[in-house]
Amino acid sequence: MRVLWLFAHPEQRSLSGALRDEGLASLTEENHEYALSDLYAMGWNPVVSGEDYAHDPQERLVVGTASTAALETGRLSADIRWEQEKLTWADTVIVQFPLWWYGMPAILKGWFDRVLVKGFGFGITDEQGCTLRYGQGPLAGKRAMVVVSAGARSASLGPRGINGELNDLLFPIQHGTLWYTGMQVLPPMLVPGADRMGEAGFADTADALRRRVLAIPQTTPLAFRYQNHGDYDADMVLRTELGTEQSGLRVHYGAAPWWTAPSSAS
Amino acid sequence: MRVLWLFAHPEQRSLSGALRDEGLASLTEENHEYALSDLYAMGWNPVVSGEDYAHDPQERLVVGTASTAALETGRLSADIRWEQEKLTWADTVIVQFPLWWYGMPAILKGWFDRVLVKGFGFGITDEQGCTLRYGQGPLAGKRAMVVVSAGARSASLGPRGINGELNDLLFPIQHGTLWYTGMQVLPPMLVPGADRMGEAGFADTADALRRRVLAIPQTTPLAFRYQNHGDYDADMVLRTELGTEQSGLRVHYGAAPWWTAPSSAS
Repeated sequence: MRVLWLFAHPEQRSLSGALRDEGLASLTEENHEYALSDLYAMGWNPVVSGEDYAHDPQERLVVGTASTAALETGRLSADIRWEQEKLTWADTVIVQFPLWWYGMPAILKGWFDRVLVKGFGFGITDEQGCTLRYGQGPLAGKRAMVVVSAGARSASLGPRGINGELNDLLFPIQHGTLWYTGMQVLPPMLVPGADRMGEAGFADTADALRRRVLAIPQTTPLAFRYQNHGDYDADMVLRTELGTEQSGLRVHYGAAPWWTAPSSAS
Repeated sequence: MRVLWLFAHPEQRSLSGALRDEGLASLTEENHEYALSDLYAMGWNPVVSGEDYAHDPQERLVVGTASTAALETGRLSADIRWEQEKLTWADTVIVQFPLWWYGMPAILKGWFDRVLVKGFGFGITDEQGCTLRYGQGPLAGKRAMVVVSAGARSASLGPRGINGELNDLLFPIQHGTLWYTGMQVLPPMLVPGADRMGEAGFADTADALRRRVLAIPQTTPLAFRYQNHGDYDADMVLRTELGTEQSGLRVHYGAAPWWTAPSSAS
């Protein structure tokens, strides 16, 4: 594997930092390659602005237009281009973060906001003019996996847990971002009870993470439906006869197993 | 009303900017008060760091601990304290943003990450030691509404639309953040087709926004279930006999109408 490991935690001496080191060590031991984007350590700027696109501030900024123009003319800011190079190089993306307000820390959300510009992460069409997204797209062929730590216990992030089921909470990133760009998305790994984990819990979690990371090439992805395989009508609404046994976001999973529980050490 | 209007768009001369101005004008015309947090214009820093809490970088940073300590000793950074003052003053919060990768722009996500520290936005208990969250909490009594623009058409953000239903996409903010802190959350307003709206569409949308904003005190909130009203068991899992007619995130809505469609002008 050639892994891009996205890491977003403000403290290196954290559980997240220790788990990241375990995951990277497991890759090295098995002769895989990796690039690490440690967003806090890099001082990553998460805020989309016209400066990313060498945009004239006198002119009205339309993000989609300006970003595509900058991509095409090589004027995207250097930090964005470098992340795009890492992503192009990688065949696998691991996205590791603590769950803050049931989503990504801002510094990580802004990695996707800035790096996946139209023309690079989406916005391409086939010969028939059909937009390639949701299972197809510029990043097809890559695999991605979310590794997320949470203070909550796993039951509260389960199918009927009060916080919302983890795959549902991650739908904007797993389906709306990673799958949207064409990547295959593996079931996430949840690290629950992260703010009170003891030594035994850490050893188990580190072991589980190493196994999950090394198993990426053999792991069955989440069964998200493809946009262009006939499941959606012209308004991009799921055809009436499909997904009738579910409601909510789960209708967007196809072939059984339609949904796979997150793994965790606990 | 005393409204805190959170606005996150990099271009003032945008549809979002024009709609914000309409909404604010409607408030003034009806003698409501408002505070505007225009995050781009303010140069808001969305990245949680130890500096927010005057934390000694030699010491390991535990965000929850350090932020609460800083809150209690008055050492939270000035920009966070000022946003907290606005939020304390307000009885109503409007959160307006363009949908980027099916979520908030990073600059806005980081407003919640930084401002809602433990002890201010959550983490309080009642006399019995019961944690007050999801419908109860430090911000109970306030109302909140999301106003979100998207390039997509409304059908693709509907109940079976390919992008995921809007309330499901917004679950992390509407349920996991606003409701978590105690606020009542009103149905969101969706502005679809935002990148190709003509003059007539703008007039209709501006009118719809003005009506939604002025109707906030009379609007029925989303029927999210309360944590402490007996619907969840000790593991914070929804009791087996409840929400059986739904799956996914919709089980977390209680009394009918369990779910309210977002309004939009189209």
